[in-house]
Amino acid sequence: MKLKDFRYDGEKKFKLSDYPTEVKGIKEHKEELLKKTAENIAKIAELQDRLYADANESVLILFQAMDAAGKDGTIKHVMSGINPQGVDVYSFKQPSSDELAHDFMWRIHSRTPQRGKIAIFNRSYYEDVLVARVHKLNKQYHMADRCIAMDTGTFFSKRYKHIKNYEEFLFDNGCRVVKIFLNVSKDEQKRRFLERIDNPAKNWKFSSSDIKERALWDDYMNAYSLAIENTATKDCPWYIIPADKKWYMRHLVSEAVLKALQDCKPHYPKMPKKEKLHLLDYKAMLENETD
Amino acid sequence: MKLKDFRYDGEKKFKLSDYPTEVKGIKEHKEELLKKTAENIAKIAELQDRLYADANESVLILFQAMDAAGKDGTIKHVMSGINPQGVDVYSFKQPSSDELAHDFMWRIHSRTPQRGKIAIFNRSYYEDVLVARVHKLNKQYHMADRCIAMDTGTFFSKRYKHIKNYEEFLFDNGCRVVKIFLNVSKDEQKRRFLERIDNPAKNWKFSSSDIKERALWDDYMNAYSLAIENTATKDCPWYIIPADKKWYMRHLVSEAVLKALQDCKPHYPKMPKKEKLHLLDYKAMLENETD
Repeated sequence: MKLKDFRYDGEKKFKLSDYPTEVKGIKEHKEELLKKTAENIAKIAELQDRLYADANESVLILFQAMDAAGKDGTIKHVMSGINPQGVDVYSFKQPSSDELAHDFMWRIHSRTPQRGKIAIFNRSYYEDVLVARVHKLNKQYHMADRCIAMDTGTFFSKRYKHIKNYEEFLFDNGCRVVKIFLNVSKDEQKRRFLERIDNPAKNWKFSSSDIKERALWDDYMNAYSLAIENTATKDCPWYIIPADKKWYMRHLVSEAVLKALQDCKPHYPKMPKKEKLHLLDYKAMLENETD
Repeated sequence: MKLKDFRYDGEKKFKLSDYPTEVKGIKEHKEELLKKTAENIAKIAELQDRLYADANESVLILFQAMDAAGKDGTIKHVMSGINPQGVDVYSFKQPSSDELAHDFMWRIHSRTPQRGKIAIFNRSYYEDVLVARVHKLNKQYHMADRCIAMDTGTFFSKRYKHIKNYEEFLFDNGCRVVKIFLNVSKDEQKRRFLERIDNPAKNWKFSSSDIKERALWDDYMNAYSLAIENTATKDCPWYIIPADKKWYMRHLVSEAVLKALQDCKPHYPKMPKKEKLHLLDYKAMLENETD
């Protein structure tokens, strides 16, 4: 299977359950794929350097997933080795009261990458159609009735549309948005939670709220399914990455990031001809410095 | 004539030249209208206080105009008397290189008002379809070809659409956008420029670039006409305010601001019943304090 098998661009119907959390028949290619991952990471670093120099596009890569799917580890693994000057990582947690007093994109927009840079979002504005939908936060927002007095379906349909418009706006202004859902199975989450409980060094990663959210698994899958279906476009696609095998997940993520950077076709800027003519003069000046 | 005669909400065809820069037959009502303006300003201050307490809507009022149309004076005149804690004014000048490296809404979004507040924009993102269109800045942006390699009409049509989407997004999230164009005539601008040149105390308001921009008057009128036609909606309308008579312009602006605040229907929050039951207890506690 290839990256494009996990890419959804909104062109056909979408059902999250059509996408595997684990892929058969990859084990025998593990060596080869791990090698490929390492090569991808090296290519990403090289393209990032060009992107930074070229500075006419930016890339926003956002990660969404259920707890313990491997967001942090994937970011660490795939993005290490890149010049940190060209990459910013933001984690979006519970919004502050200041943030809640604005529209849900307010805290996001200020963190979008300037051209030449990559931004990684560990969770994102999609929380506002995921956890918000599962917990029906739309019923609790402090906003005028005209904004919230409607059924939940209508409320979130509007949000999907606004998110789609927003991403199209970013795309038209030189920012590519790549959306990655790490698709872990309920069983695999259980195994990882148990490990976090059993291993004292991993205890800190576990919280009782993880169990509460896990109990809402089906609601989350439904919210993800709707969000992905309604916001994927050719220009700003979703990748639904099987996450039960970490090494394979990371491999596919490295493929997706590499593709996004390749799509930018970054190149080192050429020096203007006029400037170039003076290079020899500058060289002479430097060589003739007396002190 | 009434405020609604100067309101354009996108429902019919638009021609800027259909809108007067001066209205006949108002002179004899001057006294009465000045009194009304003062009353409006008092009402605005009262509604702002409720808006602040209620905090479930915000209002963004933006001013666009040719030089010397009276933006600063109008803001000063109409918005003075309001509690500054509830109002923020932002002037948008030439974008910085940091701002130019992001999409054109990036510097704007962070200044949108939180619910309960009013923001005044002295110039705005509309500059990116006004001065940008007149000076064909689209040909100079440092952005990927896919974003800029298209004819000027297409480029700005996309921007109009994105602006419309953005304002609809703000509206759906509790922020009302009111767009005011101070419609001054070319003759009146000339008179005001001459005054700025002749009066030493006003010299600082004049710059040679004013004359350069004035020479592009027709291009600006065309850019305004297109921007207004393509971004006005029922929820986020434009007001095309005759600006040759300052007192009348300010009167109409006070009407527009008042209407926006009235549309919010702000009211002081009611104390929850449960909390109210305890008020007498708190009162007793306070009265029985011994030191």
